[in-house]
Order: sequence, then structure tokens, then C-alpha cells
Amino acid sequence: MVRILFSAPPGLWAEYRAPLTRALDEAGIKAEIVTGTGDPAAIDYVVFAPGGGLSDFTPFTGAKAVLSLWAGVETVVGNPTLTQPLCRMVDAGLEEGMVEWVTGHVLRHHLGFDRDICATEPHWDQRVPPLARDRTVAVLGLGALGRACAEALAALRFRVLGWSRNPRAVPGIDCHHGAEGLRPVLEQAGIVVLLLPRTPETEGLIDAERLSWLPEGAVLLNPGRGALIDEAAVLAALDAGRLGHATLDVFRTEPLPPDHPFWRHPRVTVTPHVASETRPASAARVIAENVRRAEAGEPLLFRVDRARGY
Amino acid sequence: MVRILFSAPPGLWAEYRAPLTRALDEAGIKAEIVTGTGDPAAIDYVVFAPGGGLSDFTPFTGAKAVLSLWAGVETVVGNPTLTQPLCRMVDAGLEEGMVEWVTGHVLRHHLGFDRDICATEPHWDQRVPPLARDRTVAVLGLGALGRACAEALAALRFRVLGWSRNPRAVPGIDCHHGAEGLRPVLEQAGIVVLLLPRTPETEGLIDAERLSWLPEGAVLLNPGRGALIDEAAVLAALDAGRLGHATLDVFRTEPLPPDHPFWRHPRVTVTPHVASETRPASAARVIAENVRRAEAGEPLLFRVDRARGY
Ligand SMILES: NC(=O)c1ccc[n+]([C@@H]2O[C@H](COP(=O)([O-])OP(=O)(O)OC[C@H]3O[C@@H](n4cnc5c(N)ncnc54)[C@H](OP(=O)(O)O)[C@@H]3O)[C@@H](O)[C@H]2O)c1
Ligand SMILES: NC(=O)c1ccc[n+]([C@@H]2O[C@H](COP(=O)([O-])OP(=O)(O)OC[C@H]3O[C@@H](n4cnc5c(N)ncnc54)[C@H](OP(=O)(O)O)[C@@H]3O)[C@@H](O)[C@H]2O)c1
Repeated sequence: MVRILFSAPPGLWAEYRAPLTRALDEAGIKAEIVTGTGDPAAIDYVVFAPGGGLSDFTPFTGAKAVLSLWAGVETVVGNPTLTQPLCRMVDAGLEEGMVEWVTGHVLRHHLGFDRDICATEPHWDQRVPPLARDRTVAVLGLGALGRACAEALAALRFRVLGWSRNPRAVPGIDCHHGAEGLRPVLEQAGIVVLLLPRTPETEGLIDAERLSWLPEGAVLLNPGRGALIDEAAVLAALDAGRLGHATLDVFRTEPLPPDHPFWRHPRVTVTPHVASETRPASAARVIAENVRRAEAGEPLLFRVDRARGY
Repeated sequence: MVRILFSAPPGLWAEYRAPLTRALDEAGIKAEIVTGTGDPAAIDYVVFAPGGGLSDFTPFTGAKAVLSLWAGVETVVGNPTLTQPLCRMVDAGLEEGMVEWVTGHVLRHHLGFDRDICATEPHWDQRVPPLARDRTVAVLGLGALGRACAEALAALRFRVLGWSRNPRAVPGIDCHHGAEGLRPVLEQAGIVVLLLPRTPETEGLIDAERLSWLPEGAVLLNPGRGALIDEAAVLAALDAGRLGHATLDVFRTEPLPPDHPFWRHPRVTVTPHVASETRPASAARVIAENVRRAEAGEPLLFRVDRARGY
């Protein structure tokens, strides 16, 4: 019998109770899931999302892993009390949702259909957009999500450039990496998609200098993390025409405060952190598989590297 | 030396002159291309688009084929003076453009991002859309364009139903056909895409009865032909909530007249017949290949069947 603490914002338990119970059962794990701490030393696994009130992992002396429900772990990875192995969420539902959001917004900007959607006056202006094969999209971050998005865009025949920390090879994608790899990617990008984790290295990455490398009128999509961009630099680039549009799903402060200039900027689209969401049914299977692995002495999946921060 | 008449609206010749000359040259055809009729009996091929002033094909007694620049041939197929073989345009550029328009607008409606794009007030309303795998899209017409769109949507994991005149098998698509096949397709469709040609059989197909088969709130995309829909029935279905939205690229009268109710209906998006366009470079190669085939005594590609009208 393993004891699992489910620590997440109120409301999530109702969504996860049934799928998690079922997934553990299907994985052959006899488990008791609790939502209050009780005796922390008796807990074998912590299923974790920020906002559940847990910030001190010290008392969980017997815990074999902390299993994040979210893909981004920036709020917990640096917690000095967290000495247990940390795993992030890699979930088919999360990946599919992100591919849909990114592909949808890339096509929207590529085809330029905002003017038709928001039109309030008749206009018959037959500008036919270029083909995807003549549009370059840069995907920064080639992890679980960035790679899936890059592949979906390449399947639609966009010319896709990718950027990561280590060298990566993705068929059909022109891959670059490391600090010196960024400039040639941005210099060619008509549309840039940020799918990097938030780490000390990526914090504020998209600043005035990096924005100045983009072709005039490029479009920025940020479904990664709000802290990847320097907000003031993005606003200045929009006003200067360097950026043609920014579509942002994530923000330094969420919900985005009502008085934030992004809300009313004519060339900014805000989506309220909905690009993708962990889906309980598939996420529960990922959690159960990691519990099964740990119990069987097999290596954990999707383990976070504390030193690099993701 | 073959003599080719290029008969199309003014302006197109400037776009086609260089690519067509090059494509014929690459196909090994010695050709003279003229834009005025001169001696019609001396013309071997007519490259044709409506709007070039040609409506009587009788004098072209020596013409071996009429080669349409457009995919839809409804304005010429019934012309009683046209006795020469008629070929329509099937062009990679046309297909790619249509796939992009259809995929972009399907994702737009699927993700519901109009409210974010057109928002003028701050709103943080985190409704996460379902995954594509839980959304059914019906593609009516499984020809060159419909099939390519159905495949692209299936690759994004949408559940795709297709409908054609004859039985068709497309991997990954649930294919139906014929008059009795339409109802089961429409009854399941969250989003319907019309990629049928205009023929006597398809004229007014989407009428009040067919609309009543759709699930409440379904979305209609029409990049096919304006005459496929009964406009009054579509407006009534939108007002009754049967249709959630209509995104229309083609109209019975184009340009769509400024006083047409589609322009100002809050749940209609008009795009000005830009879903896809024949691209001169690739289209010229299709024309040249058909000239080469005819000269070599090989069967023509994409020949129109006069009896069925497409
Ligand atoms: N908006 C939403 O709804 C939502 C939902 C889920 C996730 N997200 C965000 O999406 C991010 C990516 O998720 P994922 O699952 O794809 O993460 P992942 O698998 O960890 O991939 C991260 C990618 O970023 C690259 N990277 C990290 N630091 C870098 C640096 N300093 N320079 C260059 N490249 C760097 C990595 O390079 P290597 O390949 O070399 O390691 C890797 O390719 C998450 O961290 C989260 O912030 C947002
Ligand atoms: N908006 C734009 O920019 C744009 C651009 C290009 C084309 N178009 C339109 O798109 C249309 C389709 O082009 P395409 O190249 O895909 O044509 P296509 O290859 O001729 O295919 C037509 C499809 O419609 C089906 N069909 C025809 N009559 C039918 C009927 N009575 N009942 C059921 N199915 C029927 C055919 O069935 P079978 O497979 O059984 O023959 C076929 O699958 C064109 O005719 C044109 O009107 C629009």
C-alpha cells in the first residue's frame, strides 16, 4: 500500500480523484490517496501543483518522488527544501492542446485573417497570402512541446527553424542551438514561437537586442512563460513596427492585471493561459506509471535536472 | 510549333507570361502564346479563365483542348459552343493554400479564439477548449481539395467525416457518399467544410432541411462555391442558433454587395474569395504538361466530365 499526497489548488482534486484512482488501479498499484498531510513522514509520493499550500518539503522524509501535474516547474525546482526527485508532466493531452493552439495562431497570423474576423464594415480586399512554404517559423525550445509543434508546422509545409540548449536533430526542421545559434534563427523568422521553460538563463531572453534581430513586422507567439520576454521591450518593438503583432498566453503576473498595457494594445492578443492544459485522464496515467516505476526500482520518467532548472 | 491562346481577365497575362513560357520550354514544347484571337482556327490550345471576353468556342475549330486556370469550371462547363475537351486546374499551390485556409479557420472555431482576438476589454476567462480528437469535422467533397483538407485535419487528430458522390476510401477518414450518405455525416458534424463543385446537383444543397440535421451550434465553412448554400436558410439557422457561425469565402455575387446581410451579421465572417488561388508557377507546369500530353497522344489530366458537370 503506497500513500500518495495530492497537493494542488482546491478544485483539482474533484477532477483528478476518479482518473487517478483508476490509473493507479490499472497500473497494479494499491494506493491510498490523501489530500491533507496527516503524518508527512508516512507519505510515499507527492502529486504536486503550486497553489495547494505546500512549500516546505522537509517533513516528507520518506517520499520517493514529487510528481508535478504541470509541465513548467519553475516555481518549485529551486525550492531548497525539495530534496526528493522531481518529475514534470509530459502528457499527450498537454502536447495535443499546445500543437492546436500554436498551429491555430500561426495560421491565423500567416493568413492574416484578423481583419476579416473583426471587420465591422464591408471590405473586399483580395490580398492572397503567401503559401506556408514561403513563410519561416522559428520555434524556440525543442522539448516535448516545441518539437511536437515544429513537426506539425512542418507537416503544413511551413519552413521551420528550431532552437534548443543542446544540439537536437528533428527531421524536416532546421535545428540550431546554444547562445550563438539564436541570432541566425531570429534573423529569418517571420513568426517566432516561445516554448522554453523559465530558468535563470531564459528569463528575459526576448529583450530589445534579440527583438532587433527579427525581420521588420515579425509576429511573436508566447505560450511558454511570461518571464521569457522583456515586456517593455516587446511593447517598444510593437510601437516601432519591428514586431507586427504579439499573441501572448502567459504573463509575469496571472491573471494579467486589468490595467496592463497588453490588454488594450491594438497589436497584442491576450489569451488567458489556455494554450494547453494537463488533461486529468492522460496525466493520471503518467503519474501512475511513475509510481509503478519507482516501486519496481525502475528509473523515473521526465525527471527534472535541478542544476539546469528544467 | 503549337499556338496557344491565353484568354483571361486583363492583368493575369503579366503574371503568367514568364512562368508559362518557362514551363512550356521545360516540357520541350515549341510554342507561340497569343493573347488576341487572330485566326481562331489556327489555335491549338486555349488557356482559359472567365472574364477574358471569350464565350464562343465555335471558331476554334482546330483546338485540341481548353485548359482552365481555375479549379471550378461551372461557368464554362455548360457552354454549348464548347465541344473541345475541357481540363480543370489541379495545382499544388491551390491545394496548399486551401489546406491552410481550411485548417486555420477550423482551428480558429475549434479553439474559439475570436473572443480573444476581437476583445476590447480585459477578460480572464479560462475556458480550455476540448482537444481536436473530441471534435468532429465533416468535409463535403473529397476531390483534390477536400481530400487534402480532410487529411490535414486528421493529421491534427480531428475526427473527420467525408462525403462524396461516388464511394471513396481515404485512410483515417470516415467516408460516406451519395444522397443517403449526407444525413449521418451532418448529424455528427461540429464543423462542416464545403468543398464541392457547383453543379445542378449541388446548387442550394445546404438548405433549411440539411441545416436542421446539424447539431445545435455547428459551424459552417464555405470555401467551395456561393451557390452551394441557400443564403436565406443559413441566415435563419444562424439567428435560430442552429448554426453557431458561418465563415464564407465565396458568394453568389462577387464582390459581395456592400448591403448584403452577411457583412454585418455578428456570426458571419466574410473572406473575399481568397481561400486559395492558382499560383502561376505551379499552374503553368500543369498547363504545359497537358499540352505535352496532347501533343504526344497521351490522355489529358484533370479532364472535366460534361455530364456530371465537374
Ligand atoms: N501556456 C501553457 O498552457 C503551457 C502549458 C504547458 C507548458 N508550457 C510551457 O512550455 C514549456 C516547455 O515545455 P516542454 O514540455 O516542451 O519542456 P521540455 O521538454 O523541458 O523542453 C524545453 C526545451 O527548451 C530548451 N531550452 C531550455 N533552456 C534553454 C536555453 N537556455 N537555451 C536554449 N534552449 C533551452 C531545451 O533544450 P534541450 O532540448 O537542449 O534540453 C528543450 O528543447 C514549459 O516549461 C512551460 O513553461 C506552457
Ligand atoms: N474559394 C476558393 O478560393 C476556391 C479555390 C479553388 C477551388 N474552389 C472550389 O472547390 C471546389 C472543389 O475543388 P476540387 O479540385 O477538390 O474538385 P474535384 O477534385 O472535382 O472534387 C469534387 C468533389 O466533390 C464531390 N461531388 C461532386 N458532386 C457531388 C454530389 N452531387 N454529391 C456528393 N459529392 C459530390 C466529388 O465526388 P466524387 O469524388 O465522387 O467525384 C468530389 O469528391 C471547386 O469546384 C471550386 O468550386 C474554391
